[in-house]
Amino acid sequence: MIIDKYNQRAKEINSLLCVGLDADFEKLPERFKPMEFPQFEFNKYIIEQTYEYAAAYKPNSAFYEAKGDQGTRELKMTIDYLKENHPTIFTILDAKRGDVGNTNNGYVTSAFDWMGFDAITVSPYLGTEALKPFLDRKDKVSIVLCRTSNEGAGEFQDKTWAEVAEKFSKYENVMLVVGATRPEELKKVRAIAKDTTFLVPGIGAQGGSVEEVMKAGLNGEGLGLIISSSRGIIFAENPKEEAKKLCEEIRKYK
Amino acid sequence: MIIDKYNQRAKEINSLLCVGLDADFEKLPERFKPMEFPQFEFNKYIIEQTYEYAAAYKPNSAFYEAKGDQGTRELKMTIDYLKENHPTIFTILDAKRGDVGNTNNGYVTSAFDWMGFDAITVSPYLGTEALKPFLDRKDKVSIVLCRTSNEGAGEFQDKTWAEVAEKFSKYENVMLVVGATRPEELKKVRAIAKDTTFLVPGIGAQGGSVEEVMKAGLNGEGLGLIISSSRGIIFAENPKEEAKKLCEEIRKYK
Repeated sequence: MIIDKYNQRAKEINSLLCVGLDADFEKLPERFKPMEFPQFEFNKYIIEQTYEYAAAYKPNSAFYEAKGDQGTRELKMTIDYLKENHPTIFTILDAKRGDVGNTNNGYVTSAFDWMGFDAITVSPYLGTEALKPFLDRKDKVSIVLCRTSNEGAGEFQDKTWAEVAEKFSKYENVMLVVGATRPEELKKVRAIAKDTTFLVPGIGAQGGSVEEVMKAGLNGEGLGLIISSSRGIIFAENPKEEAKKLCEEIRKYK
Repeated sequence: MIIDKYNQRAKEINSLLCVGLDADFEKLPERFKPMEFPQFEFNKYIIEQTYEYAAAYKPNSAFYEAKGDQGTRELKMTIDYLKENHPTIFTILDAKRGDVGNTNNGYVTSAFDWMGFDAITVSPYLGTEALKPFLDRKDKVSIVLCRTSNEGAGEFQDKTWAEVAEKFSKYENVMLVVGATRPEELKKVRAIAKDTTFLVPGIGAQGGSVEEVMKAGLNGEGLGLIISSSRGIIFAENPKEEAKKLCEEIRKYK
């Protein structure tokens, strides 16, 4: 199963860390900006600085789409680079896609076949039936938005997250997005979705705490979490040092 | 205001028709497939066949992303072609985007600035606060998913659509997506969002009826609806004839 790819890597390097490759062009260090493929070159640099601590990498599509077809090409170069140089690391396209059934086939082809990611984040807002093209791909992981980490997340999700957790935790090839910023809610989701792996953004810049997330969300085997940090690592003075620090914090609470 | 662009075009040609440019490569007529830019060439053909009946065009991003950076480029060529040759027709990117606030800036840049669409469809699932980068663009329209046309749409939206309609109808630069397949619900959304324009997919292939949609959804001025058909027009033997037929049906019930 594809989820085993993540678990194996996490065990092998004793880490649950996911590095968010949010290569916002405007925020890149000046030396990358004049390059032919600035977003890709930056990602390559970040990957080489952080891979020994990374169980997963997660680029967010928005930062590449902002640069048009050139950005899409650099995202593809990034995933190709990962597959060639670090094939055991789990790869997630953070795209929060979700359309009606037949249209989702286009996103499935793009993320899983054209690019070749192991997983994609998807929105449940159009219903389980609409997500069938994603869920049918047993060789890939669909990571369903359950409770996001942003400030206003509860506005509509408060009415739906429990049902989302219950329904989607039944799929073996599904993970759930559960934000780090409200550990008490993470605990409630864990109570519903006992064996599901959670992708947890919101550590660092957004204010989530590794200790609280791990206390609330680890499963019995010391797994079940993908703890994601983006800006806090990639735009740090020393990305390697930041990744190492976060990884050591994760090891401490395992 | 940017919404006036749609209203002016709709009045000028006496039509509420939106043609969905869902140029799924696999479904293109064989003569387009060997071309250098097959999706773009197909769109150009469809636009020239249908523009006299079209108040709006709406490509769905999924069908272009399926072809990678080449698809993204052909989508951009399509919008450039529309802006140059038919600048008064309203353009919608159907992308159902929605991420946390700062990340949405990437989608805003991509859809509004790099491509230059008048409007984009967005998902409210992360909350009003998260959509701020879209809503802040007063020169553009955000079309918020309220009640979609797919079979399983009610699963989570039943708990949220009324609140979505109420909250987002307060914005002057917002439209709502309300599917054609349940006219009784369209009526209820109209009761809440009296002056809002609805983008209504689900006519034709998905089973929605023009007559019922117009009875349930027209506003006092005979406007307030963008009636969208995709497959039923673009993959018809004679796209012009289908567009004309649908336009005449719309005129009949205005």
